Parts: sequence; structure tokens; C-alpha cells
Amino acid sequence: MVELKIKFLKWSAGLPVAMLNEETAKTNGIHAKDRIFLKTSSGFQYSTIVDTVKDLVGKNEIAVSFELKEQLNLKLDQKVRISLAPPLKTTQYIKNKLLGKELSAKEIDEIIKDVVMNSMSEAEIGFFVAAMYKNGMTSEETVDLTRAIYENGNKLSFKERTIVDKHCIGGIPGNRTSPIVVSICTAAGLIMPKSSSRAITSAAGTADVIETVADVEFKKEEMKKIIQDTGGCIVWGGGFGMVTADAKIIQIEKVLNLDPQAQMLASVFSKKLAMGSHFILIDIPYGKTAKVPTLEKAKELKRKFELLGRKFNKKLIVVITDGSQPVGNGIGPALELKDVVNVLDPKKNGPGDLQTKAVFLAGQLLELTNKAKKGCGEKLALEILQSGKAFEKFKQIIKRQNGNLNRLEHTSKFKQDIISDKSGKVSEFDNKSLAFIARLAGCPSDKFTGIYLYRHLGDRIEKGQPLLTLYSESRTRLDDAIECYNSKKPILIN
Amino acid sequence: MVELKIKFLKWSAGLPVAMLNEETAKTNGIHAKDRIFLKTSSGFQYSTIVDTVKDLVGKNEIAVSFELKEQLNLKLDQKVRISLAPPLKTTQYIKNKLLGKELSAKEIDEIIKDVVMNSMSEAEIGFFVAAMYKNGMTSEETVDLTRAIYENGNKLSFKERTIVDKHCIGGIPGNRTSPIVVSICTAAGLIMPKSSSRAITSAAGTADVIETVADVEFKKEEMKKIIQDTGGCIVWGGGFGMVTADAKIIQIEKVLNLDPQAQMLASVFSKKLAMGSHFILIDIPYGKTAKVPTLEKAKELKRKFELLGRKFNKKLIVVITDGSQPVGNGIGPALELKDVVNVLDPKKNGPGDLQTKAVFLAGQLLELTNKAKKGCGEKLALEILQSGKAFEKFKQIIKRQNGNLNRLEHTSKFKQDIISDKSGKVSEFDNKSLAFIARLAGCPSDKFTGIYLYRHLGDRIEKGQPLLTLYSESRTRLDDAIECYNSKKPILIN
Repeated sequence: MVELKIKFLKWSAGLPVAMLNEETAKTNGIHAKDRIFLKTSSGFQYSTIVDTVKDLVGKNEIAVSFELKEQLNLKLDQKVRISLAPPLKTTQYIKNKLLGKELSAKEIDEIIKDVVMNSMSEAEIGFFVAAMYKNGMTSEETVDLTRAIYENGNKLSFKERTIVDKHCIGGIPGNRTSPIVVSICTAAGLIMPKSSSRAITSAAGTADVIETVADVEFKKEEMKKIIQDTGGCIVWGGGFGMVTADAKIIQIEKVLNLDPQAQMLASVFSKKLAMGSHFILIDIPYGKTAKVPTLEKAKELKRKFELLGRKFNKKLIVVITDGSQPVGNGIGPALELKDVVNVLDPKKNGPGDLQTKAVFLAGQLLELTNKAKKGCGEKLALEILQSGKAFEKFKQIIKRQNGNLNRLEHTSKFKQDIISDKSGKVSEFDNKSLAFIARLAGCPSDKFTGIYLYRHLGDRIEKGQPLLTLYSESRTRLDDAIECYNSKKPILIN
Repeated sequence: MVELKIKFLKWSAGLPVAMLNEETAKTNGIHAKDRIFLKTSSGFQYSTIVDTVKDLVGKNEIAVSFELKEQLNLKLDQKVRISLAPPLKTTQYIKNKLLGKELSAKEIDEIIKDVVMNSMSEAEIGFFVAAMYKNGMTSEETVDLTRAIYENGNKLSFKERTIVDKHCIGGIPGNRTSPIVVSICTAAGLIMPKSSSRAITSAAGTADVIETVADVEFKKEEMKKIIQDTGGCIVWGGGFGMVTADAKIIQIEKVLNLDPQAQMLASVFSKKLAMGSHFILIDIPYGKTAKVPTLEKAKELKRKFELLGRKFNKKLIVVITDGSQPVGNGIGPALELKDVVNVLDPKKNGPGDLQTKAVFLAGQLLELTNKAKKGCGEKLALEILQSGKAFEKFKQIIKRQNGNLNRLEHTSKFKQDIISDKSGKVSEFDNKSLAFIARLAGCPSDKFTGIYLYRHLGDRIEKGQPLLTLYSESRTRLDDAIECYNSKKPILIN
């Protein structure tokens, strides 16, 4: 056991690490990637992985990453003692799971605590993801995982009882119903704190879309004030340390290209719990190139969500929707937001399919909360939309999020039409390729880039008519997107 | 795609990472842990994982770890372009393996290449380890893994034909036969380049033991010269980039506390291949608290080694030995080396069990290489040992490794006898606990610490007689070791 002085690394790798000088490590029989105990004079003991460096850290020092500093509230030059630590207890649980054993609620809670406390290395989190992927999780494990992620994260709480939320499984380009649903529901007097994601493989997440004109990252208290003032918000879910474990696990899932279903369910549901929602709508679009490929799989997922709803005593409704083509015309942050505004603004004409779907979803929530009688939710939603009250609510929320809709008055530098090379009916969309092409054009970081569609399934097109327009801020990116479009041919005309 | 200037991090984490400024990452739609392509102006393209930092890296810079710099031969301020990269192809192979599919030779080779090229993150290597652990590897996969690790590493080659090597599966405290076997075999005219390991969970590896009096880390060319001059060497196997993949995989196995058998077999055998050995002896000690717990498991492992021997066309002999108790009296680097010297020096009396085992093993190699007739190997080995020729060889090798046996003239600062609290016969040893107690006392870093045993299995002891002595450089550590001894009671007397 040796006493060392704390030094900080201006370095944030998403996971905590301590670094020792190679000589200090050697003298103490410690190797890179060993697990060590770090003990403070007050007796606190923490287990972390150690790396070794030649000359960034002195021989009497230990450098800690930003995460470790925050976690343990360490001070510069503070003295700590280190010693070799045994492997994490939770590694054994994960090993058992990999070999087919069911995990207990307590074991799952300990695993998630190790993830949240930053005790686990990437390799260990990857091990957990692999074990979940290989053997699946029982309903009970899924419930326990959801609870563990929720309970070991940050929570919002409201005095009001009627908190509503919605979530879409995703995978459908342009499917930007959330801002419309939030506007209608809050205009109807419901509380709807919408935490949204950023794009991972899609052209845009709702957070990216709203960010085109407003802020989406707020501290917990700021967000609560916005909700108090307006009844809702549309913010980025990662902004206030909600469900920390989930964010870390998703990072590793991306690296391994694995997406165990139990983790997806727990990820979605723990966020709804953290937002304090009592009434939850889940939208599962299915289609050949959607995330959920078949109706059967959609129904299976629906049952699992319903089970979580019962277990956590939430009023939950799951709708299965058509995921065979993009929703709305725009694909990309600003292009989608323009569709949204055109639907919300009674003076304008937005895409009919986007309006229909948003009104349907909002109607479901109005019925679920008894704001409308069974069968009358859609009618009420449409009334609120057409009255302009939803648009007023939307503008109010955008303003409170330091936003300004005038920022939408812009188009990207370069654009090019894709012209249909034959006459016929549009018969198929490849959602995944369209998202990929929009990303090549610059989505989601170049806000005004993406795709604008002129046709949907079943629409007739004549040879020489424009099928869509590609938007980009760079000629090279535009050319890349065009080239990819021509090779993938993601829209079939027959 | 954006052009950035190369900056170096004085940082070696064992795996390569590139780091971007958070803003640069955001502008390019890149998130921490994303996989990116790094393209040089010459058209070379390399896929790596990226982290993001606030202020260690400028907005027009990309910082690369030491490993990445070396790997790609990057220059300071060199311009590179980056773009998002797809997941590694090999992740899909690993996923298939996890789900029960067999890996082809080509797939295994690509996985190992990704490991060696530092393309894989820790999470991905962990994923591979988990998949091997869960489903095991067929004989064919094990052979392919061995070949891939060997072929993607550094190799030694000699003109001489009679290169011999030995390896012990380990887990037996004090079992330091290698220096004696090397001395006898080289004295008999064989070439024996012995690459040894450092302790991971044991009190000492052969490299730690020799390091008490000599250097054990050499470059490839230095090592070849030592072998040319003396016929042998006893060095650390990690010193010259031999079987790089193996070292990286073992690091992650340590973190996950997993030890898939195929990886162990490939790890041992690829090192023997890399050393250019034609005659190989494998020692598998088994016993309740050894690494291999039963005779049945030892026989199974023997068959697998024999298969590797046939596949790679090596003369191989596998011996199964008693692993129920420590070999020799000392446990710890210097204490074990003293036993070794006492066996080698004809003027001294070393532990009989260590001498018997070393002579047996050397005899096997002498027979395998036709230096001795079948049945006469042990006799020849003992003659060489008793003649003092083996000791001369040992001193010669130590001298060429910049060593001096006088450095053994030292004892640790603190020591304490453990006194038997009853009379009877020694009936059982707990090898794992003894290793752990020696580590608490300071092994392997404090070279002169550890345990010295006065009794072996079946020996009689009277109440009040010393059973062993504990050595340590610190009073606290000695007390920790004594406390642990008293709670674990690793030696049974009946």
C-alpha cells in the first residue's frame, strides 16, 4: 500500500480511470488494467481500473479522470492510498448469466450500481451486454433491470398527477410526431415533459430537430421551471444525469453493434419512470426496413411493454403503426421541423400523413387521461390543432427554451433534385438507406441538410418529375449522397 | 469529412485511441466511443475508437495515443482526414460465435489481426473472450487461434535444429523448476531459449524470480546473442513483442476474470512456436487447489496439447504431475531462487522435491531429443546436475543477463515464524491461499518477501515447532499476512 497525491487529467473518456507512473506501478506489483482500491484518509474505499504512463504522472502521484474526480469529490494534492483490488463481485454474476443462470433483482441492482459508480470498465460493461444478448432476459429480469436503471438515476417529480409521455421505437425517417403531440396535449391541460434522444444512426432525433431553433440541454431545476410555466418541454434526455447507467450501456452497445431487447425495454421505460409519467403511449412502427421488421415482432414487443406498465403501475397504451415508409416530407433536423410547424400553424398546410399520425397519437393520450371520451380523442386533438392553440403552446415552449422560430428561415447552400427515370407508382421505401443518405448529406450536425420527399407509397410519378430533393452544405457531401442514392435506389417505382 | 492536425498524447493505455475536441466531434456528428476512419494523405485508412475532450485537444487537432502513433507511423502536425466508420467486420464474427457458430480460420485470423493492429477496443476484446468462454472452441478453432496468434506476432529463428522448451500450467507455489531444467539441458548441449511470465495471481513467475539477480527484458537481437553465447536464456516473454495479441487478450481476461481454455492453449503454444522450439515439454500439475483440479481434467488438457503438437509438427511430451502441495521450500522471488541455487550448487543441499521434479523434467527433454536413451534421461540429468556443469551454465546465463548471484545475499526487514498449535502429520495444503498470503507479504514486487516452509505433505510436526516463516519488508504487510494465515489456515495438520 502506497500513499500518492491526487492529480487531475483534463480528460473525460466517459468512464473513470486512474493513471500511475509506470515505475510506481511496477514497484507496487500493479500492471496496466489491474483493478485497484483507492482509499481516502476518511476511510472511503473505491475500486477502479488503472492505466500506466511514462511521464504524464509523477512517481508520487496518481492522476484521475474527470469522472473519478467528480465521483469521489477528490481535491488536488489530496493524499490517497492504493492497493490491488479483487475482481468485481458483479463479474461473477455476469459470468453466471452468460452461462444461462437467471439474475436476481439484487444482482441486477449491484451490476447497475457498478455501472453508475463508474466501477466497471468498458470490457466489463461489454461482458454484461454480451450476456444479455446471448441468453435474453426473462420478464422478471427485464422488470428488475428497468427498476435498477431508474432507481440508480436522477428523477423528476411533480405535484401534478396527470403527467403524460410518449415514446416511439424509431427507425422511420421524418417521423417527427413528438413536438406536435406535446403541443396538443399541453394545450389540453396535460403535463408533458418530453425527454428526447439525439440521432445515433438516424438522420435526426427529436432533440436534434428542436435544437435547430432552441436549446435542448437544461439542468433539472431549469427544466422543472419550463414545465411549470408551459406545461411541457422538449429537451435532450441526456442533459441532467437521468438514467446514467443506460447512457453508459448504450455507448458500449454501439461499439459491439449489439442491441439486447431487455436493455432497450429497460432503457425506454426507465426514462419514462424518471420523468415521473403516469400515462404512457408507446408507438411501435413495423415494416421491412423499420427497426421492428414484422407485425409478429411488434406484437411481442407490445406485450413486453404492457407487462412493464402493469409492474410499475402505469397507465400504458401501446399502438402498432405502419413503418413501411417515411412520415412527412422532410428528413433531417430543419426539414422535419418545417413539416412540424406547417402542421401546427393553422394558416399553413403540413404533410397530411404526419398530421394524421400526430393527431391519432395525441388522441390516444387524451382518451387515456380521460380528457376525451373513448373514441373522441382524435376529434378533440384535431380541434385543438386547428384552433391554433397547439401552435401557441409550441411557440411558448420554444421561447422558454431560448428559441426563435425565425431561425428556420434558411436553406442549405447546395441542393439537387433526384428525377424519376420512369413513370409508375411508388411501391417501396428503404428507410435505412434513406437515413444513411441523409447522414451522408450532413445530418444530423448540419441542421438544414437532408432529404425532401415529393411522393409517398402508392403515389403516381411521371418520368422526368422530381422524386425528392437532396440538401447539403458542401458540394462533396452532396455528391456523396447522390452517388449513394444512385447505387442504393432506396425508392422503388413500378 | 474534416482535415485535422496530428497531436500526440504522452499516454499509453495499452490500446489505441484518438481524441477529438468535443466541438469538433459535435460539428462532425461524432460521439464519444464512435468508430472513425483516420485517413492519411497517402490514402492509408485505419479504423479506431474516438474519445472526446474539452480542452486537451484543439478544435483543428486530433490527439492520438502512443500506440496509434507507432502503429501508423504518424508525425506531429501531419494532416489526416476523419469520417465515421462502420462497426468492425469482426464484431459480426464474434456475435456469430457467441450465438454458437464455429469460426473459420480466416475469421479467427481477422479477429487476431484486429487485436494486434489495435483496431479493437477493450469492449470488443472482452466480447471475444466472452464468446470463447461461453461456447468453447473446437479443436480446429483452437489450432487456428494458435496459428493466428503465432503468425501475427514476432518470431525468433535459429539455425540450430534442437531447440527445446518447457511450460508448466502453473498454480503450484514455489514450483521453480525452469531455471534448473534450462541449466541442465543447455549443459547437455541443447538450445533452450526460455521465455517466462511474470506473476499475475501467483507469488512469483520465473521472470520475477530471475529478476531478483539479473535482467529479464531484452530486445530480440540481444536475446539471440545471449542464446548464441550460452545456449539458453531465462527472460520475460513480453519483452520483444512476441505474440502481441495474446498479451492484449490476457489483459482483458484478467479484468473479466475469465480464462477460456482455448485461449490458454493458444497462448502457451503460440509462444513455443514463436521461440522456434521443436521439442516441447508441457507439465500439468493437478490437485484440489491447483489450476487443474482433477486427473480427468489434466488428461483432457494433455490430449488437447498433444493435438496441437501433431498439428504444428512438433515433438511434444506432456507430463501430468502432483499438484497437491508447493514444490521446494521458498515461495516468493528470492526465496525460490535460493532453493534453485541450492539445488544447482553441488556443494549445497537444495529441497529434495524440487530437485527430483527438475531432474525428472530435464530427463524427459533429454530423452525426447535423443541426448539420452529411453529410460536413461533422469540419470543423465542428475549426473549433469551433480557434476556442477548445470550450475556453471546457470551462472554463465545470469552473467550474460547482466546479473550477479551475490544479490541474493539479503533478507527482508521483517519476519515471523508460524508455530504449529498441535502435533500431527501435515495432511493438506491450500495452494491458492498460500500464494495470496505471500502476495500480502509483498510478493512479487518486494523480491525478498514471501513464505519459507519447513514441512511438506506427510511430514510430522510437534506442537510448538515452526511450520513456516513469513518474510516482509513492512510490519503492516507482515501483520496482514499473519492475520490472513490465521483466518485461512492453509495447512492442515491431523
